[in-house]
Amino acid sequence: MERLQVIKIGGNVIDNPEALESFLDDFSKIPGKKILVHGGGKAATAMAARLGVETKMIDGRRITSPEMLDVAVMVYAGLINKKIVAALQSRGTDAIGLSGADGLAVKAVKRPPVPIDYGEAGDITGVNSRFFKGLLEMGLTPVVCAISCSEDGRLLNTNADTIATEIAIGLSDKYSADLIFCFEKDGVLDAENKVIPSVNEEICNTLMAENVISAGMLPKIKNSLDACRKGVEKVIIKNSRKLLEEGGTLIGL
Amino acid sequence: MERLQVIKIGGNVIDNPEALESFLDDFSKIPGKKILVHGGGKAATAMAARLGVETKMIDGRRITSPEMLDVAVMVYAGLINKKIVAALQSRGTDAIGLSGADGLAVKAVKRPPVPIDYGEAGDITGVNSRFFKGLLEMGLTPVVCAISCSEDGRLLNTNADTIATEIAIGLSDKYSADLIFCFEKDGVLDAENKVIPSVNEEICNTLMAENVISAGMLPKIKNSLDACRKGVEKVIIKNSRKLLEEGGTLIGL
Repeated sequence: MERLQVIKIGGNVIDNPEALESFLDDFSKIPGKKILVHGGGKAATAMAARLGVETKMIDGRRITSPEMLDVAVMVYAGLINKKIVAALQSRGTDAIGLSGADGLAVKAVKRPPVPIDYGEAGDITGVNSRFFKGLLEMGLTPVVCAISCSEDGRLLNTNADTIATEIAIGLSDKYSADLIFCFEKDGVLDAENKVIPSVNEEICNTLMAENVISAGMLPKIKNSLDACRKGVEKVIIKNSRKLLEEGGTLIGL
Repeated sequence: MERLQVIKIGGNVIDNPEALESFLDDFSKIPGKKILVHGGGKAATAMAARLGVETKMIDGRRITSPEMLDVAVMVYAGLINKKIVAALQSRGTDAIGLSGADGLAVKAVKRPPVPIDYGEAGDITGVNSRFFKGLLEMGLTPVVCAISCSEDGRLLNTNADTIATEIAIGLSDKYSADLIFCFEKDGVLDAENKVIPSVNEEICNTLMAENVISAGMLPKIKNSLDACRKGVEKVIIKNSRKLLEEGGTLIGL
């Protein structure tokens, strides 16, 4: 099967114009088929503050009010997505920006309001692999933001890591899919801040027992192991500044 | 050649939720290949006001400052475009939202700053007909907002009428393209407010001489005649509430 790289960048890259430019330089040099998934960074929160839209949190997790959803759609699917697409076009990469609504690329249902009502948050129910394959076969590079869509036409806020994971899983029957999470560190770090070259389920359990894996890293690793179980070839967690270099942490079963 | 309908809706439809829903009901019922182009309405101006971004005008024409461009990209390519796409998906139309940056669909250059500096405004230099054809052949319905893009990756504000016209012209070598401008009136009206069933260049000149054509309608008709000269099959100006009915004003050479 042909290779496909699904690459996710998080808020720290989005929030830093120099880091983003440098990442996009590297991303545009990757040969072959690729998909970029991006988070939102602090821009949506900052925009909400400017508009007087309250950021609601319960137990440290964001609640998406209808007003906050509008801000998220504007900032993620509008400003950030189109700036990335335009920047890639200027680098010779024929990018196309997508939300989950476009081609019903990332289908979701509104998260049940029990036990916690997260508001306009979506749980992914399917990825339109036929649609992505069609775009990739046209030579396009999809750039996907963290907005999903229900079949009855509701836009919904969805975690970008989860979107990247589900896209890699959904396309793994058509491509040999790699999933690459880029962030500000060199990989999963051990107690001495050294990169752990590879993590499997067993190592993951040990690291958890030893409290080495940080709270923010745990869902990433769990997502990654889940992706491997569901057909993704390999998952790598690495530094967004070292996209073209070897290294990072390889997650496998 | 296969038929293609390029349909443009303006701000009055966008600004009225009931009119928009009703239009989208009708639009989703149109069989065959179709493209929707939408303007922005008052939402961008309202959003700019909420954000304290000044709306600059010279001789009654809007100047797009960098701050206003960001607002336009957020509102047109983000909020309005994705809401329309999601609403069409819920009606069974497999829509895909686009700015001019996506697939470099609508390529432009920044308008020269002399004699008037319109700021971040784009003059269209080309439409990527291969890209549009690829999407249409996949069974998708492109929904295009009024943002174009330069080859060096600048997003630019561009009139939605012009975008619709250039798309219809650009695709007229691959499709028998109709261009339909939808707005709040039943067509081009005569001095007694009756619809003029058809307008050609000669009738246009007469109407202009008699001051029958309003200032807002004149560029629409000139655009339309230009489109007919460049290969568009027919141009119709009609009421957005009567999309599925016969009627309106037919523009031809």
